[in-house]
Amino acid sequence: TQQLLSGRAPRPKPFRVTNADRSVKKGIMASSLEDLMNKVSDSLSVPCVGSLVLDEDGTGVDTEDFFQTLPDNAVLMVLEEGHKWTLHPSSPSRDQL
Amino acid sequence: TQQLLSGRAPRPKPFRVTNADRSVKKGIMASSLEDLMNKVSDSLSVPCVGSLVLDEDGTGVDTEDFFQTLPDNAVLMVLEEGHKWTLHPSSPSRDQL
Repeated sequence: TQQLLSGRAPRPKPFRVTNADRSVKKGIMASSLEDLMNKVSDSLSVPCVGSLVLDEDGTGVDTEDFFQTLPDNAVLMVLEEGHKWTLHPSSPSRDQL
Repeated sequence: TQQLLSGRAPRPKPFRVTNADRSVKKGIMASSLEDLMNKVSDSLSVPCVGSLVLDEDGTGVDTEDFFQTLPDNAVLMVLEEGHKWTLHPSSPSRDQL
């Protein structure tokens, strides 16, 4: 029988988090934005997380309630202070190798 | 340090695991990330498994809880130390909606 936590915390969901140059991407489980920020810092070796944005369009994920609307396996980018999101190079206009 | 919750041995699930150059792919049953790592090492003759990543986008599967969210027949790539994931040449991502 599976034991559920007594309704306090949302169920942890899977996210995929990449660094600013997209050289590393990690699957991370998190139940809240703060939880994800903490885990990202360890998992991607980012000592000082500035912000989390959606990889697809750079939308900043700043609030817990917006975070909770993200689907399973949403792809996020972690930005350190002073770094900026840039469009993924393999989006539709890229030349084939 | 990871602890298994008592009495919660996950059912083994099927995975499809390929090597870094995608020349070999094997169907492997595993109930945990550690179990899969061990079986991959034998099955694909990789003496020193560095990491497992999702074949579709290179997401690193480092944690047991993220591993448990993967669907049956998820395609993974085993990477040895120093090897890197590269996008599958026939990936349809460019032409998706």
